[in-house]
Amino acid sequence: MRIGAIEAGGTKFVCGIGNEHGEIMDRIHFPTEQPEPTLEKVIAYFQAKKVDSIGIGAFGPIDIDRSSPNYGYVTTTPKPGWAGFDFVGTLKNLFPVPFEWDTDVNAAALGEATWGAAKGLDSCVYYTIGTGVGVGVYAEGKLIHGLMHPEGGHVLTRRHPDDHFAGVCPYHGDCLEGMAAGPALEARWKAKGYELPRDHQAWAIEAFYIAQAVTGMILTVSPKKIILGGGVMKQIQLFPYVREEVRRNLNGYVGAKEIISDIDHYIVPPGLGDNAGLCGALALGVKALHNA
Amino acid sequence: MRIGAIEAGGTKFVCGIGNEHGEIMDRIHFPTEQPEPTLEKVIAYFQAKKVDSIGIGAFGPIDIDRSSPNYGYVTTTPKPGWAGFDFVGTLKNLFPVPFEWDTDVNAAALGEATWGAAKGLDSCVYYTIGTGVGVGVYAEGKLIHGLMHPEGGHVLTRRHPDDHFAGVCPYHGDCLEGMAAGPALEARWKAKGYELPRDHQAWAIEAFYIAQAVTGMILTVSPKKIILGGGVMKQIQLFPYVREEVRRNLNGYVGAKEIISDIDHYIVPPGLGDNAGLCGALALGVKALHNA
Repeated sequence: MRIGAIEAGGTKFVCGIGNEHGEIMDRIHFPTEQPEPTLEKVIAYFQAKKVDSIGIGAFGPIDIDRSSPNYGYVTTTPKPGWAGFDFVGTLKNLFPVPFEWDTDVNAAALGEATWGAAKGLDSCVYYTIGTGVGVGVYAEGKLIHGLMHPEGGHVLTRRHPDDHFAGVCPYHGDCLEGMAAGPALEARWKAKGYELPRDHQAWAIEAFYIAQAVTGMILTVSPKKIILGGGVMKQIQLFPYVREEVRRNLNGYVGAKEIISDIDHYIVPPGLGDNAGLCGALALGVKALHNA
Repeated sequence: MRIGAIEAGGTKFVCGIGNEHGEIMDRIHFPTEQPEPTLEKVIAYFQAKKVDSIGIGAFGPIDIDRSSPNYGYVTTTPKPGWAGFDFVGTLKNLFPVPFEWDTDVNAAALGEATWGAAKGLDSCVYYTIGTGVGVGVYAEGKLIHGLMHPEGGHVLTRRHPDDHFAGVCPYHGDCLEGMAAGPALEARWKAKGYELPRDHQAWAIEAFYIAQAVTGMILTVSPKKIILGGGVMKQIQLFPYVREEVRRNLNGYVGAKEIISDIDHYIVPPGLGDNAGLCGALALGVKALHNA
């Protein structure tokens, strides 16, 4: 089978062709512009290849409720031109194949559960911590949608006692994204994350916020694996800090051995590395085939 | 069909007989003692009636992982005698019918989704706020288990600026349960909740903590209905405060009309009232029949 995959990010689109084993055979990428010129490139790419299905993992918020008249639309994004754009409909008119569409982070969670760090598990949570913070939730073998879809990047956090930064989220100020996404890190320390030394106090403070969100997720959804991806998490020195803070927060209350004695394998980087996003879209394409 | 239901609470057991329409035909209740004398009463009750299946909603933590050798056991509760007790096994030996077993709050969530406030919806969250705080999560038509089961009563919260109470959770001090369960309310105000006037500042502070947890739940799981039950929520003056705080916390970020324009029907008391627990166990009994 030849499966089309679209990783529709807020700054970059990646399109690829893969198979049901999670192997990517071909890919291209280009910057995210207005919807029409961007989709033109997507269409040109897939018209040249014959695909049996297409999976799309997209930046949000998006409408993923199949019973909604706006299913397939990007909804309220501030990104110029994209709010109210019929993403899936535009492609469906040109490609008579099964489609599956979800948030980029739900896609990544599914990809990780299919071929990556959570392979074989029926639940995992995928965080991307980069320009923003997004969360995908896979539980009991299903991607969680609900009223809309998880927007766990905006959970409220307690302030670190040594941190007086106001936060940069335009909605919530000092929510997780406002305190811990790349722009917050840069505004607080006047430097990009990768410019800061590994032993800079920035990392303990950064981990303090991420760990609060992870702790809340463990208590709320009880996932079998927590995967932390995105640009900020390339600073892998964050992982030991986050794990330590999560354990401190839980204080032995959740007795699962995965947390008590094996947290190094419980809170992990993406098993699919930089392919997590595109493989996630590919996993949606596989799902589209199965549902068809 | 005659379905057996057991609401196994930390202070009280309720056993009943119902049908697949959520109707309870008979019930008894008695205090929760040590496991053996308590289960003797359960057994005596059901031996006198012929039941086709039994559903159990139990206080936790409990093992609900069907692949676990300890499936059906109460796990680490501090309640004398119950830690390590084989609850389901004890009954299964005597009643050759299908069983379904879950947390009391997951049971209540399922009951509410089947016959109550979330009837017809494929997702809802049920909070009980009483002696402790528990959370049941039903999403994409499934009760969420994961690594263990949700323990959302223990999420961390930000402190209310006018509240200097230390919190009473033995694990976390000022987590949600430590700040907002009945014992916290009583320790903070030196009075039981029902003794405090409806316009007492206790309620705004109480709602402040509950609303933080609800906000986190909306951002994390995006449920289609949030049901707040338990003894503390009998103070129905809390509901408007909680709804207002949730809206303030979200600040328009989640654009769902259920929250923006209809929050009075989104954050609600149990549709099944005081039957939420027993009907939840009944719903598990119905599930047991279907799975059998």
